[in-house]
Amino acid sequence: MASWLQIPKNSPFSLANIPFGIISAASSRVPAIAIGEYALNLNAFASSGGFAQLPAVQSHLSVFNQPTLNAFAALGRPVHRQVREYLQNVFRADTQFPQILKDNAALQKSALVPLSEVTNHVPMQIGDYTDFYAGLNHAYNIGVLFRGHDNALQPNYKHLPVAYHGRASSVVPSGTALHRPQGQILANPAADPKVPTFSPCKKLDIELELACFISTPNDLGKPVSIDEAEDHIFGLVLMNDWSARDIQAWEYVPLGPFNAKNFGTTITPWVVLIDALEPFRATGLEPGNQESLLPYLREKKSKNCYEIPLEVEITNKGGQPTIISNSNARNLLYSFPQMVAHHTVTGCNLNTGDLLGSGTISGAEPKTQGSLLEQTNGKTPLALADGSERMFLEDGDTVVLRGKAGTEGNYVGFGDCVGTILPPFKL
Amino acid sequence: MASWLQIPKNSPFSLANIPFGIISAASSRVPAIAIGEYALNLNAFASSGGFAQLPAVQSHLSVFNQPTLNAFAALGRPVHRQVREYLQNVFRADTQFPQILKDNAALQKSALVPLSEVTNHVPMQIGDYTDFYAGLNHAYNIGVLFRGHDNALQPNYKHLPVAYHGRASSVVPSGTALHRPQGQILANPAADPKVPTFSPCKKLDIELELACFISTPNDLGKPVSIDEAEDHIFGLVLMNDWSARDIQAWEYVPLGPFNAKNFGTTITPWVVLIDALEPFRATGLEPGNQESLLPYLREKKSKNCYEIPLEVEITNKGGQPTIISNSNARNLLYSFPQMVAHHTVTGCNLNTGDLLGSGTISGAEPKTQGSLLEQTNGKTPLALADGSERMFLEDGDTVVLRGKAGTEGNYVGFGDCVGTILPPFKL
Repeated sequence: MASWLQIPKNSPFSLANIPFGIISAASSRVPAIAIGEYALNLNAFASSGGFAQLPAVQSHLSVFNQPTLNAFAALGRPVHRQVREYLQNVFRADTQFPQILKDNAALQKSALVPLSEVTNHVPMQIGDYTDFYAGLNHAYNIGVLFRGHDNALQPNYKHLPVAYHGRASSVVPSGTALHRPQGQILANPAADPKVPTFSPCKKLDIELELACFISTPNDLGKPVSIDEAEDHIFGLVLMNDWSARDIQAWEYVPLGPFNAKNFGTTITPWVVLIDALEPFRATGLEPGNQESLLPYLREKKSKNCYEIPLEVEITNKGGQPTIISNSNARNLLYSFPQMVAHHTVTGCNLNTGDLLGSGTISGAEPKTQGSLLEQTNGKTPLALADGSERMFLEDGDTVVLRGKAGTEGNYVGFGDCVGTILPPFKL
Repeated sequence: MASWLQIPKNSPFSLANIPFGIISAASSRVPAIAIGEYALNLNAFASSGGFAQLPAVQSHLSVFNQPTLNAFAALGRPVHRQVREYLQNVFRADTQFPQILKDNAALQKSALVPLSEVTNHVPMQIGDYTDFYAGLNHAYNIGVLFRGHDNALQPNYKHLPVAYHGRASSVVPSGTALHRPQGQILANPAADPKVPTFSPCKKLDIELELACFISTPNDLGKPVSIDEAEDHIFGLVLMNDWSARDIQAWEYVPLGPFNAKNFGTTITPWVVLIDALEPFRATGLEPGNQESLLPYLREKKSKNCYEIPLEVEITNKGGQPTIISNSNARNLLYSFPQMVAHHTVTGCNLNTGDLLGSGTISGAEPKTQGSLLEQTNGKTPLALADGSERMFLEDGDTVVLRGKAGTEGNYVGFGDCVGTILPPFKL
């Protein structure tokens, strides 16, 4: 697909993508899509008759005049699909509707904004955020560190997508700087009795994840079946689930991570629709395991993950960047529909805007892991291009996650998921 | 304090209380207070000049025309205190403002609604719900079951208030019936390899808790100091944190409870303001431990818990009720201000309406525990007044939690926290 708009060949936002987000416009927040090096302000576009050739959304135009994507998402997958295909049509070189935008210089001027000038926001009002642990290699690698090779995976791991409830309030958009968290850590974990000290986190880590936003809600008490689960998913973002490993090690028994994760979680601001990822379906790591799952988790589709190359980059204070990891979304043992089915099987209600993280996505080989803990174990430092070394993150480090599926000229990607670590807040 | 309104001596909603909630009125939801056997519709009250003698709220009257208490809570503790004291004045036998309501039959008729005719709702829009584990005896009792007496409490327990993120979407008001959850359980936990089956929960339990709602938010990155923490608390409710013990036992390693807790959490609909509980401050279980805490958790007030008798009642299908437990809020090792300080020490932001549960409140003696697991361990059945026995809850069981501080005629209580178990949803 070629566009009349000039789109760089390496852009994650090709015509094959059309991701949705929320941008600042004047003093308000409005829905937009990203395309090439531009955002299309959908509020300006809709109010100038941009959707005139799409009858299906005429009675829903108010969703484009909202500060979050919740109202649009709640319209359901068939509408998302129509809107995406219509916008692809509008931007195609051979568009059926040249009068809408291609030949409409005034609307181009008012609605197309260079991404370099755009301020993005968390695209949805998140009710609850849940983080899964579906990255098989990550779970294995972490298990080896804690329990050795033989007992690396817990007995439940291959039967259900393990998850915990996360903190929604501190989900922030790419570009938000975060203070290094402070809290209780064990300066000497071997001491007996164990006595904690108050300290800035000394083992600040990243977690490379994907996450999905929920579109259609389900009622309390009524599980979503595995066959219907995908239609409850709006789309995906990249996510960095920052983790304070030393705080986590001390606090996490018996109820799991809490302060170690609640200080910030960074997501990319553009939601890639689930339909945009359809061409990149791939067979998962363990097709045989899928067939042994309980029926409520068994998918009809054999290709239940995506081929999406992912990477992690670290840079200190504008210095030379280092790609420290190359991973792939295929490293997830469970799919997002399986996560939805499992989450709701007890009757738990998911609401529009809820966020479900995948868990850390690590490969099995060196330099493919999605966390520093797996790469260094706090023992073997990682060499950065600027000559420095890392066990964990230092103040001033900027971490960028990237992920894009497809090929040059037709990438379907997430854009950069960027976060910088500030020194601890002065108490 | 005597009132011109007839208030039963055993009412939890005496003039000393004045709790706030959200009730249905016509087709909308409005703020109200509970007093004796009535709710006062604050929207009707405010719009008829009920607050005319309280200058401090004149510019904020719109908070009484909202479907949640969030806007009122966000006004901060000094305003809550003034409004409560003003309403106490209005209802006092020797009110300074008889013209407002005592001698105003029309406003009494339009704004006072018998509680028996009131429909209550979750009083706040909950952003995030966090559940702590601050009940010392509960943590000890559960620890004994899993690890024996010598290692019952984990090494971190007396250093920090352990917590996990809970599920906000499924917090429901008292009176909501819940389907017995279904999910993965181990029919034979001793088998190797462990293979789960899909089943309705067979070990459905309760957890007797208190919970606080947050009023004033804090910014991401900026911890709330222990000295300021209480002013971030709006008030307290009773909470039943329903728990599926068999689902929990299988799923909870390594990240904590998830499906075992996400199908429903019941709260009382009337928020008892933190100021209303001030007269019931009491010394906690282990004053010595408080002094050994890290400074960010150390409170200046030595009386850092409340003397609030609590009880748990079970009834099956309208049969004879049985009080199965008598406990007390003094069984919490950590206070709500300590929970706020710990929650935010990493920089986590709390928002108006966030809910923080205390954890199960159990005594040390038989018949004082706040969960069935502690009372029966699934082995020693509990005898009910109707002649039946319980290890865990059966379909048709109605559980009522109650709690009130103070003495006859001046009770400050929460009202009933009621939930009934329905059979599993038919898949």
